[in-house]
Amino acid sequence: METLSESLAFGGTQGVYRHASDVTGTDMTFSLYMPPHAKGTRLPVLWYLSGLTCSHANVTDKGEYRRACAEHGIIFIAPDTSPRGEDVPNDDDWAFGQGAGFYVDATEEPWAANFRMRSYIEDELPALIAREFPAADLARQGITGHSMGGHGALTIALRNPERFKSVSAFAPIASPMSCPWGEKALNGYLGPDRATWAEYDACALIAQGARLGALLVDQGDADGFLAEQLKPALLERACAEAGIDLSLRMQAGYDHSYNFVSTFMSDHIAWAAARL
Amino acid sequence: METLSESLAFGGTQGVYRHASDVTGTDMTFSLYMPPHAKGTRLPVLWYLSGLTCSHANVTDKGEYRRACAEHGIIFIAPDTSPRGEDVPNDDDWAFGQGAGFYVDATEEPWAANFRMRSYIEDELPALIAREFPAADLARQGITGHSMGGHGALTIALRNPERFKSVSAFAPIASPMSCPWGEKALNGYLGPDRATWAEYDACALIAQGARLGALLVDQGDADGFLAEQLKPALLERACAEAGIDLSLRMQAGYDHSYNFVSTFMSDHIAWAAARL
Repeated sequence: METLSESLAFGGTQGVYRHASDVTGTDMTFSLYMPPHAKGTRLPVLWYLSGLTCSHANVTDKGEYRRACAEHGIIFIAPDTSPRGEDVPNDDDWAFGQGAGFYVDATEEPWAANFRMRSYIEDELPALIAREFPAADLARQGITGHSMGGHGALTIALRNPERFKSVSAFAPIASPMSCPWGEKALNGYLGPDRATWAEYDACALIAQGARLGALLVDQGDADGFLAEQLKPALLERACAEAGIDLSLRMQAGYDHSYNFVSTFMSDHIAWAAARL
Repeated sequence: METLSESLAFGGTQGVYRHASDVTGTDMTFSLYMPPHAKGTRLPVLWYLSGLTCSHANVTDKGEYRRACAEHGIIFIAPDTSPRGEDVPNDDDWAFGQGAGFYVDATEEPWAANFRMRSYIEDELPALIAREFPAADLARQGITGHSMGGHGALTIALRNPERFKSVSAFAPIASPMSCPWGEKALNGYLGPDRATWAEYDACALIAQGARLGALLVDQGDADGFLAEQLKPALLERACAEAGIDLSLRMQAGYDHSYNFVSTFMSDHIAWAAARL
């Protein structure tokens, strides 16, 4: 693992790191904020999965998470959203291909060799974190994310309920099987058999019996993607039918940008801190 | 004035605006955060002047000022650092020309026609703000800035002590007459007569009798520009000799980046709020 940058922030260290990923076959970059802590202390980890077009950099620059993570003593990790590079397949659509990995393990060509973000986030990157950051206590993990990353957070948590003690999301894609972004991506990465899509759809996973503890979701009601792509009502219905304790907060006047995410970031960190 | 974007953030509105500047002969872009407030309320204004290579966007993305401005009810304005455009003179050095206006009114060619950031910040932009944002109470103004923008904040405040009830700076260039960045810029914009430079040098202005109320300066001691370019000791000596109440806080381990600025931003906003 290579350190690209480290800089003191709110008493802790904001770092950006790169490593060669066996899973994606590419170099992968992520950011990690290590809050101030006494030597030898072990700290809980909050994963933040980013949305379409984003890399680790968007939330690192604009997410305003460091103050709250320093206060609560939480490590904040922001992975990339896909493998990248000239040798990696891509698409002209910004909602598919590089920057749009949808947190799936692709099975279709030409994506299958590199687009394995499920395994990267679920297995390879946590193992790297455990090796490289001994302060990270992986017995205490939470996960959150924005938009496509909110979808990632929900589906990864639903498939791994023992791993995550805290789950939340900002404007998640509630059901990729039920929106144009998701249908294109799942068809492209997994092929036309929709039965294979269900393990990457929060609402389908819940309908099949997957369960979560309490779930916090913030959603701006002025979000331009709300009606066509995000569809929080589908998640609300799925949680209601399954008895999942969803706090869906419709935030009046907020859009889909980091002005929305940063406004409510400290709430999500406090939510995680209370459970970690 | 044209609205480029407006987005709800921390209950207020983060906007980016563009207008045709008579002073610079170009379009100029700035950002303005309007905190939540009751209709008819008038609010104090905090100007934030940015550093070399920056536009309004750097602090708008990375400055983490919105939460504190919302709490204290302060309007936050981030202008650009120079005129820009294909028809505007430039230089290969990132510390001179576009993105590096040094808050002077240039007298030398080819800069004199456009590089008039002193008049832009002191006169034209405040007049525009007064017209376009009636909630802005220009009887209550504070000013701060980072690096070259810290130099701008100090010199503009020293020349206009009646206008600014609050002054602070992050890692300011304390004396452009005494560092390579400043010497190149002042020579380029003003010509070789150093007597003309003094009104753009905080330490020289203080030596000539200019005064300020209390002044807050934060400076990281791991800042790579500290010894050669920023030289806070010169400001400390000038303030001591003049009896100016300087709080110079050397911040252990902090660098020159927005990780430093954002960490202490809320302190500077609280400093301004206490005086506005």
